[in-house]
Amino acid sequence: MKVDGKHYRSLWADRPAGLVHIIDQTLLPHAFETRALDSMEAVAEAIRAMRVRGAPLIGVSAAFGVALAMEKDPSDTALGIAVQTLKATRPTAVNLAWALTRMQHALADLEPAHRAAAAWRNAQAIADEDAEINAAIGRHGLALIEREAEAGRKPVNILTHCNAGWIACVDWGTALAPIYMAHDKGIAVHVWVDETRPRNQGLLTAWELASHGVPHTLVADNAGGHLMQHGHVDMVIVGADRVTRRGDVCNKIGTYLKALAARDNNVPFYAAVPTPTIDWEASDGLADIPIEEREGDELRVVRGLDEAGRPAAVNIAKATTKVANPAFDVTPARLVTGILTEKGLFPARESALLAAYPTDRRSEAFLT
Amino acid sequence: MKVDGKHYRSLWADRPAGLVHIIDQTLLPHAFETRALDSMEAVAEAIRAMRVRGAPLIGVSAAFGVALAMEKDPSDTALGIAVQTLKATRPTAVNLAWALTRMQHALADLEPAHRAAAAWRNAQAIADEDAEINAAIGRHGLALIEREAEAGRKPVNILTHCNAGWIACVDWGTALAPIYMAHDKGIAVHVWVDETRPRNQGLLTAWELASHGVPHTLVADNAGGHLMQHGHVDMVIVGADRVTRRGDVCNKIGTYLKALAARDNNVPFYAAVPTPTIDWEASDGLADIPIEEREGDELRVVRGLDEAGRPAAVNIAKATTKVANPAFDVTPARLVTGILTEKGLFPARESALLAAYPTDRRSEAFLT
Repeated sequence: MKVDGKHYRSLWADRPAGLVHIIDQTLLPHAFETRALDSMEAVAEAIRAMRVRGAPLIGVSAAFGVALAMEKDPSDTALGIAVQTLKATRPTAVNLAWALTRMQHALADLEPAHRAAAAWRNAQAIADEDAEINAAIGRHGLALIEREAEAGRKPVNILTHCNAGWIACVDWGTALAPIYMAHDKGIAVHVWVDETRPRNQGLLTAWELASHGVPHTLVADNAGGHLMQHGHVDMVIVGADRVTRRGDVCNKIGTYLKALAARDNNVPFYAAVPTPTIDWEASDGLADIPIEEREGDELRVVRGLDEAGRPAAVNIAKATTKVANPAFDVTPARLVTGILTEKGLFPARESALLAAYPTDRRSEAFLT
Repeated sequence: MKVDGKHYRSLWADRPAGLVHIIDQTLLPHAFETRALDSMEAVAEAIRAMRVRGAPLIGVSAAFGVALAMEKDPSDTALGIAVQTLKATRPTAVNLAWALTRMQHALADLEPAHRAAAAWRNAQAIADEDAEINAAIGRHGLALIEREAEAGRKPVNILTHCNAGWIACVDWGTALAPIYMAHDKGIAVHVWVDETRPRNQGLLTAWELASHGVPHTLVADNAGGHLMQHGHVDMVIVGADRVTRRGDVCNKIGTYLKALAARDNNVPFYAAVPTPTIDWEASDGLADIPIEEREGDELRVVRGLDEAGRPAAVNIAKATTKVANPAFDVTPARLVTGILTEKGLFPARESALLAAYPTDRRSEAFLT
């Protein structure tokens, strides 16, 4: 999407120069800086330090990390080290392991002399597929926004929580993809951006939207119910970290509260996800999905810029104040109007999801 | 309640010294400092600068401001100036106008020579009545907590939003009064404290509870629904800025979301209020109560302490980022289990509230 009028992906490769370019996301939303990575080790550092973040982007970055390694040394040993090193950067990221396994399968049986070219090609394919999946999510979601616009909403008011935008992916994003498409098509949209405490990922969403020129308003997480009560929200679209086979949505903490308010005010609530986010092994989200408890300092310490515009942090609570910091919650399927994937819009019901994905359910979107 | 083992009220008078002592709440929760006010003007400044805050405490402070004025000059002119000056400090505070009117009625017909003594006496009576009202709310709420404890909850887990504690009143608080009473009685209680963005009044609640020794855990506003889904909350108790005659509860933004989650998980939801908070003129809270929109910098700028422990602020969003900042929301009566007042616990229904308050409904609690 656009930054200062220029189109960017969150990562792009320059094989002739032996470089992979990223946006250093540790500096967002306060500064926009790109960074050129020239080695597998630099990619590993970028993932570990969260210069790249978001499950899809981490996977794509790692794939390009393998390409950089193969450029330098295409031996079996180097391939093994690259895969091991990159896999260890964020041990719980499913897309990371998946992308590295795919790279390994694609390269292992090739002559070393052919590996570098194949690695760049495969990494680029993973990136392009991710962008295409999100574009397809966007097209299906666009239809929903168009329907509201045709019903006379001007602008169509959409509330989102956390950041499910292009900088977490390669391009478009998941929840934000339909919004970008609608805006690019000239439909008047306005986005209510939840701050998303404690990590304030809403500020990344606000940055994305501002950079692309989409009208939006930042609100405290507490405000969404009030906005819906007063008719200021036409739909809620969020991303998800996991969706169960019956349509329960595990997403950033606080999503469930917005889904409750949406239901109480007859506002449709959608989760936009690439198919691999559907976990066919999980059925009851509340029982089956363990919720990560993160450290209390995420809540106690708030980061921003000081008066002089330098990065700074303030402690809003003492280190001795006990904090609970569950990172995600589960929105039961009964509160979800629909699941948007690259294949279309589906009711949040086991029968509907199984019918849409009759075979090879976990992996079909990627393993083509 | 207690701070460092010593009992405090939020304000206390020393007539022989001609001083009114307050806790400077602009420094909380990061520093506890008291301040001695020696003139009506000093009281006015303290109200304007929010060194004292919370509707009941503002009213009591203003009453003592009149006493300080009468000590210096008990003339009709001085009385008129004091009432005018103090009333103008926070024009929308109902308790402020009420307390000043009461002081004026009590003093106007007296000989000037008798006014100072009467002013101190009346101000003290307003303070003591406020503390007694809150203590009565506490006793009625205590019964609810005792019931949970008898049912085997150990501790009884209570979630609260914003700060409805003793520092907003004279003593005890409203929502927190039952909690302090239960704790003082040896009942095991644990409080989930909502951060309460954008002004973070939850940090005041955490400070109060820590100072008095009540176990508690600070959470992001987003977390409450998840906690309730997993059975970690036995009841929600909040204060309120206004309650309508049919039991709609207008309170700090975000309260409605917690009430929705409480209902979805069969958790009782109570609003604790002194009777004058019930607005007998208002029926439908959503239609009848205008919601104050406050400035965006409350969200954009976060205050705390820097690494060296000095007060500091960070900007989390640019000044150009559009922000909406509604200060309150309305929880419909259908989501409210009960209204706790100094007279008892009442269903959030017009018939029940009217039956409990058959006469002189707006003012009977105070105008005795």
